[in-house]
Amino acid sequence: MEEGAVKLLENINTPEDLRKLKIDELPNVCSELRQFIIDEVSTNPGHFGASLGVVELTVALHYVYKTPYDLLVWDVGHQAYGHKILTGRRKQFHTNRKYNGLSGFPKPSESVYDTFGVGHASTSISAALGMAVAADIQHDKERKIVAVIGDGSMTGGMAFEGLNNAVVNNSDVLIILNDNNMAIDPNVGGVSNYLLNISKSKSYNKLKQEIWDGLGKLNGFGPKARRLVQKTEGALKSALLKESNLFESLGIRYFGPIDGHDIQYLTKVLQDLRHIPGPKLLHVLTKKGKGFKQAELNQTEFHAPGKFNKLTGELLDCECVMNKPPKFQNVFGNSLVELAEKNEKIVGVTPAMPSGSSLNIMMEKMPHRAFDVGIAEQHAVTFSAGMAIRGMVPFCNIYSTFMQRAYDQIIHDVAIQNLNVVFCLDRAGLVGADGATHHGVYDIAYMRHIPNMIVSAPMDEIELRNLMFTAQQENRGPFSIRYPRGCGCQIDWKQAFEPIPIGKGRTLKQGKDLAILSIGTTGINASRAIKAIEKEGFEIAHYDMRFVKPLDEELLHRIFNQFDKIITIEDGTIQGGFGSAVIEFMADHQYTAKVVRLGVPDRFIEHGSQEELMRECGYDQKGIQKASLDLLKG
Amino acid sequence: MEEGAVKLLENINTPEDLRKLKIDELPNVCSELRQFIIDEVSTNPGHFGASLGVVELTVALHYVYKTPYDLLVWDVGHQAYGHKILTGRRKQFHTNRKYNGLSGFPKPSESVYDTFGVGHASTSISAALGMAVAADIQHDKERKIVAVIGDGSMTGGMAFEGLNNAVVNNSDVLIILNDNNMAIDPNVGGVSNYLLNISKSKSYNKLKQEIWDGLGKLNGFGPKARRLVQKTEGALKSALLKESNLFESLGIRYFGPIDGHDIQYLTKVLQDLRHIPGPKLLHVLTKKGKGFKQAELNQTEFHAPGKFNKLTGELLDCECVMNKPPKFQNVFGNSLVELAEKNEKIVGVTPAMPSGSSLNIMMEKMPHRAFDVGIAEQHAVTFSAGMAIRGMVPFCNIYSTFMQRAYDQIIHDVAIQNLNVVFCLDRAGLVGADGATHHGVYDIAYMRHIPNMIVSAPMDEIELRNLMFTAQQENRGPFSIRYPRGCGCQIDWKQAFEPIPIGKGRTLKQGKDLAILSIGTTGINASRAIKAIEKEGFEIAHYDMRFVKPLDEELLHRIFNQFDKIITIEDGTIQGGFGSAVIEFMADHQYTAKVVRLGVPDRFIEHGSQEELMRECGYDQKGIQKASLDLLKG
Repeated sequence: MEEGAVKLLENINTPEDLRKLKIDELPNVCSELRQFIIDEVSTNPGHFGASLGVVELTVALHYVYKTPYDLLVWDVGHQAYGHKILTGRRKQFHTNRKYNGLSGFPKPSESVYDTFGVGHASTSISAALGMAVAADIQHDKERKIVAVIGDGSMTGGMAFEGLNNAVVNNSDVLIILNDNNMAIDPNVGGVSNYLLNISKSKSYNKLKQEIWDGLGKLNGFGPKARRLVQKTEGALKSALLKESNLFESLGIRYFGPIDGHDIQYLTKVLQDLRHIPGPKLLHVLTKKGKGFKQAELNQTEFHAPGKFNKLTGELLDCECVMNKPPKFQNVFGNSLVELAEKNEKIVGVTPAMPSGSSLNIMMEKMPHRAFDVGIAEQHAVTFSAGMAIRGMVPFCNIYSTFMQRAYDQIIHDVAIQNLNVVFCLDRAGLVGADGATHHGVYDIAYMRHIPNMIVSAPMDEIELRNLMFTAQQENRGPFSIRYPRGCGCQIDWKQAFEPIPIGKGRTLKQGKDLAILSIGTTGINASRAIKAIEKEGFEIAHYDMRFVKPLDEELLHRIFNQFDKIITIEDGTIQGGFGSAVIEFMADHQYTAKVVRLGVPDRFIEHGSQEELMRECGYDQKGIQKASLDLLKG
Repeated sequence: MEEGAVKLLENINTPEDLRKLKIDELPNVCSELRQFIIDEVSTNPGHFGASLGVVELTVALHYVYKTPYDLLVWDVGHQAYGHKILTGRRKQFHTNRKYNGLSGFPKPSESVYDTFGVGHASTSISAALGMAVAADIQHDKERKIVAVIGDGSMTGGMAFEGLNNAVVNNSDVLIILNDNNMAIDPNVGGVSNYLLNISKSKSYNKLKQEIWDGLGKLNGFGPKARRLVQKTEGALKSALLKESNLFESLGIRYFGPIDGHDIQYLTKVLQDLRHIPGPKLLHVLTKKGKGFKQAELNQTEFHAPGKFNKLTGELLDCECVMNKPPKFQNVFGNSLVELAEKNEKIVGVTPAMPSGSSLNIMMEKMPHRAFDVGIAEQHAVTFSAGMAIRGMVPFCNIYSTFMQRAYDQIIHDVAIQNLNVVFCLDRAGLVGADGATHHGVYDIAYMRHIPNMIVSAPMDEIELRNLMFTAQQENRGPFSIRYPRGCGCQIDWKQAFEPIPIGKGRTLKQGKDLAILSIGTTGINASRAIKAIEKEGFEIAHYDMRFVKPLDEELLHRIFNQFDKIITIEDGTIQGGFGSAVIEFMADHQYTAKVVRLGVPDRFIEHGSQEELMRECGYDQKGIQKASLDLLKG
């Protein structure tokens, strides 16, 4: 943007301000909005590429639709930064994803313009259909509802369930398919190929665009457009939309594809579509990272790049530093390849998270044995079950929060058949800046009541490797291993594999005044807390339980026989979680210790750093110290 | 079938025997198999219509494919009775669905011909793809894999996730779409309309069939067919398959539709398809209940009709008897209409279970406010959330076991936003003959760790009505109500609605020696058990807790202060369930009673009558008596 140009963005405090502008001012709004996002996200990290890609779409939507009366639903919400900035949150945007700051996702409690809370993929069509039915029942005939969904999210099963249901109530919903051929990693599957085929036929697009343009000129923008677009639609379709039958066959009128970076054209098309009733889909082609060269070139890296130099694109948060512990995900990714080289039964599965899970390491080295199945957690688990029942050992890597999508498949397709599927739950526990929708705090509770399931969590990288090694040994049945987002504490992590006895914890430290039972990486903070407390003269025992199920009952008998003060710590909900399993044991065997359970309390935890959130929940190092001293002195 | 005809079925003990027959003997096999199913299911109730509909398909599949080397995956499995009868289980078939008898579903532990355990819908494509990838990795090039999936199951999101992924590995899988336009109730949605449109074009079908036939004659059945079918496929497609793009657009070759009751034609088509590589779909038109007139006419009633007269079709298990308590589902269905007549915010949602849930009562009376969304539990919940956020009060009725499919949506779309969606969980607890895949025994455990969620269970029909009444009062947030399969105990159930204080249990009976805390309908057996025990001179207190969350802490304090012997009873898993919540309370407040938790133990429970299974788990009336006396005398 030129120096000295009139600043438009700083005068847009609501979409109403935007709608006062002339259509030929919109390109400048887009430039300013894009630059604002670059300025902000380069210094305050967040999701970057997706929001850059929909700058024009965001401006066009708020320009054409009467928000907040009309309802916009953003699928996932990574792409909604522009939306937030245009809807009164420009000045707070520097607090994005920070503790007590703006959420990184649309959130109704934050703004009336955020019509539905999002975070997980593929929910927007269902939510929009619900809103449309509500409007219908409430005789609210003028209200328009728009769902914006990416081509990645479109592969999730519930998006299809929504598409299938759209026709039933003839809901007046516009679905905008934001097609950039990417999820976080490149999108895969039949839908993706199909969309790519459409998009490739350039001449077809051009012809289409010209006809639509002509149509617009002919009719202006208004109620007349509706009748004519409808009338000519048949001809348009038969002439041009030969490849659109995926959506048309579900009874949804298909329009597109159109260039999602041509703000004026986009605006005109939306103005026309606003008057076309019933379920309809507009296919918009965009580029993830649009307008920031390095982001366009490295779309996966710039999905959520951390801090970067806004002039050069240099990434500033690179954690690949020598002599620093690696991320848990990389320990997983590298160790899996090591194991797979020795055990030819091992295969790897990820639902659209090759880089996030580090399964991409195996996908590169053994492409025929590692599978990205798209945003499709249910399929990922049952696909794994299908392989397992034929003798393979799938490592199915799904973030804890997304594994919630496949809870039924874990029970029904894996556990009932006692199949040796290894569930690697990355991002387990409080995940930090992504907040309430993404915390992986339920998996201990939802895994431990499933029969046949082994539920484990490593305290550090070496333990993770050894649990993975143990899980692929013969006939283990369903085996879940949870580990957190981020780095561990072991620089020298690449030790030779050693088997871990199933259901056996380990004694890290003897003591006499108090026993601390930790599961997973909470043991690190516990160890530090113990060192601090012991300065006051107490002797604290520390047990890394390793397994929530089966519990180490032999060890627990020893502990309950020796201690009457016990603390359990887990990076997860204390309702029905690890601590609950310990007190079930206590009750079953009629021990009478005072047990304090530390973990996530029974409410939704918002966003912030992992450390801040653990402090809030009372199981950071200081929280453990305080709980211990209260119990010791109480 | 004529008297005196040669009996074929009784000589078929494995599919190998079937494959020794000539193709012109297959119609007689089908007749005999159909009659065998009618004879058996009329006296030993089970799923009827679906299996009758696929008699020809089942015979053709085992005739053409080299089972068990080739792998057949039956989606859901309601339709697999013919498969069981042809694969060595004819003589045991009278034990179908009985305690210690055959399972009503395919089950690998029962037979090598059952390649994958099924029960819930839409899993077959994912499982088959997993098997295909395993065969590929194992260099097992000749093995063929076939998934048979109904048009109802095809609406489930995970089926779409599988379809989307089929193309990625170019898996050599045949998907057979068994299209009868029914789930249990008539199928709904875009896919259904689409398939119906194809099927309606009769002349097109006829032409198609003639060409295929000609092709067959020209080439015989063998390797030659493959090349020619492939070569001519392009022409066939462009000439005939104009409407097949739903599947073709996902990269899956589409063949059909063909008549699923023409055994010889079906066999020929399968013989040809067996040699066509890659993912492909054969669209087969069948009639649910085929060959039994009353079942063809009343497909929903004859889905699983109970006992019936095999000559007249008269239903013999009709439970609509005067002066007998109604089924819980009917109390739900009728009460919901009563409430909806007074509260215009109320809407009803069911995923493909209008008759099973009795939401059909509201669908008839208020069609614009009651929605069958197809087999799509995820969508059902988020669609409800979309309505709720716009001010409606959805009653989302899903069987407990199927609600597992929507666990993430409950958390992510409803609970985080604290929306007033009322989850009515029918078939909660042990469901009886459907067995391990269908028991609704996890919902207490998976609901109670979700923040904001109210978790309740009525002891009888009157309480169910009152909980429903309470749940639709303003700003209740997410509210779950679970109730079991079958009838209650109240003849005079239609009492005026009364609100129930949230989180308040009730004292049914005072006592001094032992306190029994029941949740839900377990209270009925508990009451009976208490009467029996008290004959031995003990005084037992009985509390119907009503709510698992929030727990009635005031009442619990009173109980723990008064009693040192306590029994909790729930029709659900004791790992993390209601009893676990009670002992969490006990531990938090340092009470020291001996608490015995009755419920479902930590293993999968098979099929049988509800009474038999409760006995096995130890919480039928006698089990409660025994546990009580052990505790009292122990």
